[in-house]
Amino acid sequence: MVNETQHTCSASSSSRSDGGSSSGSESSKDNSRCSTPVLDADRHERLREKMRRRQDAGDKWFSLEFFPPRTANAAVNLISRFDRMGAGGPLFIDVTWHPAGDPGSDKETSSMIIANTAVNYCGLETILHMTCCNQTKDDITGHLQKAKRLGLKNIMALRGDPSGEEWEEEVEGFNYAVDLVKHIRNEFDDYFDICVAGYPKGHPEAESYEADLRHLKEKVFAGADFIITQLFFRPETFLKFMKDCQAIGITCPIIPGIFPIQGYHSLRQLVKLSKLEVPQEIKDVIEPIKDNDAAIRSYGVELAVSMCRELLDSGMVHGLHFYTLNREVATTEVLKRLGIWKEDPRRPLPWAVSAHPKRRVEDVRPIFWASRPKSYIYRTQEWDDFPNGRWGNSSSPAFGELKDYYLFYLKSKSPREELLKMWGEELTGEESVFEVFTCYITGEPNRNGYKVTCMPWNDDPLATETNLLKDQLEKVNRRGILTINSQPNINGKPSTDPIVGWGPSGGYVFQKAYLEFFTSSEIVTALLKVLKKYELRVNYHIVNVKGQNITNAPDLQPNAVTWGIFPGREIIQPTVVDPVSFLSWKDEAFALWIEQWAKLYEEESPSRMIIQYIHDNYYLVNLVDNDFPLENCLWQVVEDTFELLN
Amino acid sequence: MVNETQHTCSASSSSRSDGGSSSGSESSKDNSRCSTPVLDADRHERLREKMRRRQDAGDKWFSLEFFPPRTANAAVNLISRFDRMGAGGPLFIDVTWHPAGDPGSDKETSSMIIANTAVNYCGLETILHMTCCNQTKDDITGHLQKAKRLGLKNIMALRGDPSGEEWEEEVEGFNYAVDLVKHIRNEFDDYFDICVAGYPKGHPEAESYEADLRHLKEKVFAGADFIITQLFFRPETFLKFMKDCQAIGITCPIIPGIFPIQGYHSLRQLVKLSKLEVPQEIKDVIEPIKDNDAAIRSYGVELAVSMCRELLDSGMVHGLHFYTLNREVATTEVLKRLGIWKEDPRRPLPWAVSAHPKRRVEDVRPIFWASRPKSYIYRTQEWDDFPNGRWGNSSSPAFGELKDYYLFYLKSKSPREELLKMWGEELTGEESVFEVFTCYITGEPNRNGYKVTCMPWNDDPLATETNLLKDQLEKVNRRGILTINSQPNINGKPSTDPIVGWGPSGGYVFQKAYLEFFTSSEIVTALLKVLKKYELRVNYHIVNVKGQNITNAPDLQPNAVTWGIFPGREIIQPTVVDPVSFLSWKDEAFALWIEQWAKLYEEESPSRMIIQYIHDNYYLVNLVDNDFPLENCLWQVVEDTFELLN
Repeated sequence: MVNETQHTCSASSSSRSDGGSSSGSESSKDNSRCSTPVLDADRHERLREKMRRRQDAGDKWFSLEFFPPRTANAAVNLISRFDRMGAGGPLFIDVTWHPAGDPGSDKETSSMIIANTAVNYCGLETILHMTCCNQTKDDITGHLQKAKRLGLKNIMALRGDPSGEEWEEEVEGFNYAVDLVKHIRNEFDDYFDICVAGYPKGHPEAESYEADLRHLKEKVFAGADFIITQLFFRPETFLKFMKDCQAIGITCPIIPGIFPIQGYHSLRQLVKLSKLEVPQEIKDVIEPIKDNDAAIRSYGVELAVSMCRELLDSGMVHGLHFYTLNREVATTEVLKRLGIWKEDPRRPLPWAVSAHPKRRVEDVRPIFWASRPKSYIYRTQEWDDFPNGRWGNSSSPAFGELKDYYLFYLKSKSPREELLKMWGEELTGEESVFEVFTCYITGEPNRNGYKVTCMPWNDDPLATETNLLKDQLEKVNRRGILTINSQPNINGKPSTDPIVGWGPSGGYVFQKAYLEFFTSSEIVTALLKVLKKYELRVNYHIVNVKGQNITNAPDLQPNAVTWGIFPGREIIQPTVVDPVSFLSWKDEAFALWIEQWAKLYEEESPSRMIIQYIHDNYYLVNLVDNDFPLENCLWQVVEDTFELLN
Repeated sequence: MVNETQHTCSASSSSRSDGGSSSGSESSKDNSRCSTPVLDADRHERLREKMRRRQDAGDKWFSLEFFPPRTANAAVNLISRFDRMGAGGPLFIDVTWHPAGDPGSDKETSSMIIANTAVNYCGLETILHMTCCNQTKDDITGHLQKAKRLGLKNIMALRGDPSGEEWEEEVEGFNYAVDLVKHIRNEFDDYFDICVAGYPKGHPEAESYEADLRHLKEKVFAGADFIITQLFFRPETFLKFMKDCQAIGITCPIIPGIFPIQGYHSLRQLVKLSKLEVPQEIKDVIEPIKDNDAAIRSYGVELAVSMCRELLDSGMVHGLHFYTLNREVATTEVLKRLGIWKEDPRRPLPWAVSAHPKRRVEDVRPIFWASRPKSYIYRTQEWDDFPNGRWGNSSSPAFGELKDYYLFYLKSKSPREELLKMWGEELTGEESVFEVFTCYITGEPNRNGYKVTCMPWNDDPLATETNLLKDQLEKVNRRGILTINSQPNINGKPSTDPIVGWGPSGGYVFQKAYLEFFTSSEIVTALLKVLKKYELRVNYHIVNVKGQNITNAPDLQPNAVTWGIFPGREIIQPTVVDPVSFLSWKDEAFALWIEQWAKLYEEESPSRMIIQYIHDNYYLVNLVDNDFPLENCLWQVVEDTFELLN
């Protein structure tokens, strides 16, 4: 939005009095039969409603603006940043639109795909920017349809920079942002929440500040739901602008755009693009320290904090919009100092909820993808319904193929060289693989002094919850029970428990102990003998890469392994062991040996052949201890198995 | 079936080789998405499959034959008998068809309605007899369609007695049972399981025993699934018949019809109708004791037990069919002595599951109708879907009106005079009502020396589970908290617990404490003040007859108050407190004061006015303690309320 240019003369727009007022048909659909008990009102509200609710409740909020990255690697990093900055609780993020960068394409760096990733894979409420000038109606409609299909619900309607030297209005074309607002309302009714840009100092190309305010009013009356402003340097600039807007009848929310100064050059470039003038008092501070990045950033943070405080204290501002320039440190620091960065350890469900409107009712997933939620979302993106309440699709869960293991949002954050350091430049046998698993669990450095912070099945360090099982996991991994997923049994802990809690407060959460691992056929043979003793207590699935499948699950029914009981609500069971989808997971879990690990090594190399051997010969096993009120028996099962082998 | 007459010459029937073999389309529908986890395979099997499964498992079973009653009062008694004898675990019951008694009508004494009641209200697998002679094709099709609509899945296809002196075959008509079998298969494909009659001694009108066997084979080949035989007096009669059937290629199950002799006259009449001869050795015993009913019945039981033992020991017989003559004692005694009467305290769900195929997936009900399940079934009989997994209909639960409080299956088993003795010939004030409630709870006789064994909201004595709360309930009823429903909190008892257990073994069941009562507005005022202290812990609904409704239920969501966790399964939550259906229940609960109690007294009488006053001014309250792992706080809530009042 920073380099957005606005129209300079008024288009003959008829005002749209009902713009953005009636609630969509979708919300009534959400209220129909068999809907999920609402765990979190947020999940069912549209952005403008969330904004309103926060305002009514007196909650201050913030939002974050990003631009699309230039390379696939930068995209991977940006997605990680979404996850990290998402933890602070932004009300939304937005992704800018760069006409030169093929913004509506399927490229992993396009605005469309980055916004799609934020919504679907990171669970963030997201606004996609869209510019209209020099584009055909069909192009624009196509982009909007695609955005809708991908689950995007919010558009920032902009004019964009006219290309070419001398720009001329097209009679029937999209000349101004207001044309785009009208087009969206005409073609998509109330489906999208629409945001438009406001210019606290007036748009540089506008005849006057007053004329610019009138243009803004037109955009709002054409159907925009709220306004985000261009950056500004003094709080009074914004507060005056806001009063002026209200004076001419603009009543929708107006969100100040905050730009924490992060460096001398970025400031200069920005100022040039936006044609803003930096106040003398700021120049006076910056010029002398222009080569000291750290000093400028400190000053920028200070300045932003003080301006934000003044805005919030005015009582007129409820939310702050940050131009992050895709950087994390300065914005995060400002937010933390303002006290509106809120890392809530409480989760509505044990897994992160996707923000796609179609997935709003989703409240149950198979446990297998616990560490690979993005893969699960990717592979189920074509589903029309999402399991809710019951593991509904279990009879025919058509999981999409995961052919491209380098889909950018599934790619490891670590480059090949780092992975080799962690997982071994050279493997000498199955035991060196056991060692890698063990180091990942213990957090101890491997024999070459490197910590193993990720595995093919888990791109992050061990979850806090898994830490509860650390000692036992270490023991079994050393002996060739190569664990990739596990959870302890929980018999009614408060839903506010910082480690295993989820859902509204006042509830109780429960889990059945779960253990999933790869192991050799020799160990499986012994394990099966041992499991006979535990037949009534332990459910198991044991499968190899060829699909040989041994299980005692009754009628291929799913087994609920996480559930919660809450005041005044139905029971929620967000995680199940589903025998049918386990077979889809099995393919993925085995493939990761090859795609992520074996391929680090030369073909025919001994290291590669060791991983290939494991892939071809090991079994993937999962065990559930159904007696959740008793002490977890799965360690005893493993112990008995080793004893039988000796 | 006893007075059934069979055809005497063979109809030119083509054999139907696929009769009864392919499984219906319905079972595949049951396997579709969102289906209920199977708690009890029985619920999803058709009768012939259940029979096969029992036989394969080596389980011996029995079934019971009844005839429709002559009066509405007799119907009420018969339904109670269904409930009592159903407790012994019959594989099915069957209801005979009496052409003279308007058997297909909606009268409460018709065969159709009695069978409907057995299936839908008593949850019994039921076979409806149907005769065809002297009936038009349209009549028969109409009866079958109605049976299907009511959820009946099994037909016993019979010829019936020709009316008039000289019966002649109609060329295009239904002359023999085989015509009816074919008609059912033609018109209803594989929807019904069809049973036909076999005659161990040959049908009295058949040319010969051999000719009769051929007719039986025709019926089977026309599509019958199994055979029930006419009664017989010697086990060898049946065993020979069975071998003869097998010899000519009849391979379907053949179930011996057992008639325990219960009296001299009933035996004589039966023998006359069935044209059977009583063996001399039996006559020799009976004639001398013909005026001693008890002696004859003892002998009859003895004889039946010994014959059944011989049949079962032969290894050829897996199930026994009893002609009960609508009596309970003799048959029950025979079954108990044989060891095949199996009162299973274990329940698939906390409430009795209906046998209607449409309701098979039903696995959640509102708690309010816990003591009036027949009313719940009646009022929801028009629902297309039944809640499963989630309380699906809560957004618009269209409960049928319960206008006719004398619907025979909802009528009290006790006559007016008895009710007056229990509930008071004359009431002197609200306190005398408190006393009635208290006597019902304690089981102590009232001031006139009568025990109060039923209440308008509960036609049976206190449930075993409620007994757990007896002392507290007594205390609060004495003081005007008039309880009509309650359950203790349960924090993970084994599913096999004899009192609160349900579902498959190896599971754990849970409950939130629940208390529902009528009380005065004075007490409600104090209660509401007390509830403020318990706001986060206790959910409440408080409503009066006019519909004034006070609640703290979030978003009118249902609150699960009974649930179970089982090995290898999803979570089951069979009972909820649903705020929306509570308002339908409220109408019924208040109406019962008037319909069942006030109307016992003369209009304008003081007693009637007391009940009317309570109806007009009291509130119906329900309370749920969400903290099921802690000690039930509802008694403290009530205690605090009384304290506040003092």
